[in-house]
Amino acid sequence: MDKQDILIAGFKASSIAAGLKKNNAADMALIFSERKAVAAGVFTTNKVKAAPVLVSMEHLIKGHARAIIANAGNANACTGSEGFRNAGLTAELVARELGINPEDVLIASTGVIGAQIDMEKVGNAIPGLVKGLSSEKIPLAADAIMTTDSFAKISLFDGEAGGIPYRIAGIAKGAGMIMPNMATMLSFILTDIEIEVLQLKRALSYAVERTFNRITVDGDTSTNDTVLVLANGMAGNSPLNDSDYDGFTKGLQQVMNDLSNMIVKDGEGATKQVFIYIKGAASEKDAIIAARNVANSYLVKTAFYGQDANWGRIMAALGRSGIVMDEKDISILIDDIKIVDGGLGVGPDQEKNAAERMKNRSFSLIIDLNKGGYEYNIITCDLTHEYVSINANYRT
Amino acid sequence: MDKQDILIAGFKASSIAAGLKKNNAADMALIFSERKAVAAGVFTTNKVKAAPVLVSMEHLIKGHARAIIANAGNANACTGSEGFRNAGLTAELVARELGINPEDVLIASTGVIGAQIDMEKVGNAIPGLVKGLSSEKIPLAADAIMTTDSFAKISLFDGEAGGIPYRIAGIAKGAGMIMPNMATMLSFILTDIEIEVLQLKRALSYAVERTFNRITVDGDTSTNDTVLVLANGMAGNSPLNDSDYDGFTKGLQQVMNDLSNMIVKDGEGATKQVFIYIKGAASEKDAIIAARNVANSYLVKTAFYGQDANWGRIMAALGRSGIVMDEKDISILIDDIKIVDGGLGVGPDQEKNAAERMKNRSFSLIIDLNKGGYEYNIITCDLTHEYVSINANYRT
Repeated sequence: MDKQDILIAGFKASSIAAGLKKNNAADMALIFSERKAVAAGVFTTNKVKAAPVLVSMEHLIKGHARAIIANAGNANACTGSEGFRNAGLTAELVARELGINPEDVLIASTGVIGAQIDMEKVGNAIPGLVKGLSSEKIPLAADAIMTTDSFAKISLFDGEAGGIPYRIAGIAKGAGMIMPNMATMLSFILTDIEIEVLQLKRALSYAVERTFNRITVDGDTSTNDTVLVLANGMAGNSPLNDSDYDGFTKGLQQVMNDLSNMIVKDGEGATKQVFIYIKGAASEKDAIIAARNVANSYLVKTAFYGQDANWGRIMAALGRSGIVMDEKDISILIDDIKIVDGGLGVGPDQEKNAAERMKNRSFSLIIDLNKGGYEYNIITCDLTHEYVSINANYRT
Repeated sequence: MDKQDILIAGFKASSIAAGLKKNNAADMALIFSERKAVAAGVFTTNKVKAAPVLVSMEHLIKGHARAIIANAGNANACTGSEGFRNAGLTAELVARELGINPEDVLIASTGVIGAQIDMEKVGNAIPGLVKGLSSEKIPLAADAIMTTDSFAKISLFDGEAGGIPYRIAGIAKGAGMIMPNMATMLSFILTDIEIEVLQLKRALSYAVERTFNRITVDGDTSTNDTVLVLANGMAGNSPLNDSDYDGFTKGLQQVMNDLSNMIVKDGEGATKQVFIYIKGAASEKDAIIAARNVANSYLVKTAFYGQDANWGRIMAALGRSGIVMDEKDISILIDDIKIVDGGLGVGPDQEKNAAERMKNRSFSLIIDLNKGGYEYNIITCDLTHEYVSINANYRT
């Protein structure tokens, strides 16, 4: 996608190197809506919530916002009352510089946990961020929130509501600590559609549940996960009818789906992207548990890395998950190649063919439990030497 | 320990290279009790149970046994009715050669899942195993059941019951796929004490819950985990009084504790052994959940490998575990060095000191939740490049 394309009516962005990252790269981003935007958010389910998460949750209660200030390099998590004050202060400094209400500023942070953020650096960076605001700089905001990401994640959707065109633009950072219910994942979605806050909240929940909540890199859930959506109404459409609302929800889901795929593709050290489909589960809960157990198994993930159709490890992961199942009912496919039928291996030829498919950058793993009508899908990646390298050396 | 020391009245063992392992190493072991022994077992909780597990469970119902036949190289798991017949046939072949009842033969297997075991090789090996039986060969049985283990695991306990000396000897194989509720872990415990079957079962449950069920390498639970205890009564002690029974239980626990420690020390690719203690949990369940979440977190385990006192990852693992907790109540120590107090980092000096301790081959991680009176402990290891190498290449 040409970076020039990410223009969206009424939104500006900017980024700056505040010195929070070690490498002098851009590490703070500001997004600004010229008009008061309807706003909604989804946050980490971790009981340890970072200070910016707590502040944003508070600021979102009223259902609108004007700006998002984000930083990488420091998560401002496990930082106690000082960290909470610093997050609030950051929103205040941004608001003062923009001439808006502090409660209209949302905040998100990612990076090292447990260290206080350097407020001098933050304070010094804010005037430059505001001065730099421009409608062309949304891609730069995507760059600035990267941590161990290897590429910036941006997606765009163009839709129509009542014949009026609107746009949805999303950016995200991902990499490690990703897991259903999200984890050190930040995503900011901007749209110029006119929408009511309850509609926006409903569409957001729907889309997050089907996208960000179905990806996993390592099963860890971070303290900072945040998805924010701002809708500034600049498209000037009429109130959404059912079909327009559905179209918007699908558009939102498409943008989040793009971003989710990019996050898994860019999972720390990942070389494979694996689409896991659970079919025939006895309940929805079973389908979810089965998918997560397989997707987060150390042994299954190393087998993906080794391009080995080692279905015994998949059976073992299912068996310990506690779901209703019968070994002899289970079938397993890699893409369209059946390797397990009735709980038994189909044969070495099929396994060899499946292993060939596993040489691809992405492939599917389809597990049919044959116990009922419930399904679930999840995207995961492999567990690699590089994952260990990145995470053993992250702070040092 | 001098291998010559592992003699125990009335027990013989042998091992042989049947050709089930690729490298021509010994891969089958036979243990034989001259007298009918009281017997008890604990098996995998995985719903996918290997054929030998199902056969041993059946043979154990009557509470006694004479022999254990074990193999490495093939798990005989996910092998359907053919696998089940093969496990039963193996017991029969051993029984015929020994001149005992097939139901007095217990069986255990470890290795690759999903391939049928080569019964010709098994059948050819059995006469040699029986012929080779000798009281000095218990250590050779420990060698034969190794898979990715780097050393054989043996422990010995000498006790007295009513003034009569008795002995407990245990062997085990461990390495990957170890997790609370055990996983590709085999352990055979032999004792010459005279004990009733109900006492033996009770002592076994008690000891397993405090040892094998509290170790984790990768959170995966295998289809083949088996702990078997045979007590042949050759010591000739009188019926156990309460104090003798306690002494035996403690001895059993000590042997299993030794073996558990060896298993974690020898976790696939492990360079660190970490003793995790959860204190101050609001319930026993919370203590267990907290311990397992921290012990199995990819990010915590890579931080151990990186010798990094990255307590933010520990807080995040606790926070996503769903337990009753309050960030600001938590304290965390590495050995005796406090790195978190009231949910906040104590400071860089303390973290540096803690990181120094983490250079040791083993250290403690003590987490006080300050929410109640419940405790739990678990032993884990680090997640290393070598773990990934071993498991990505296991079958290829």
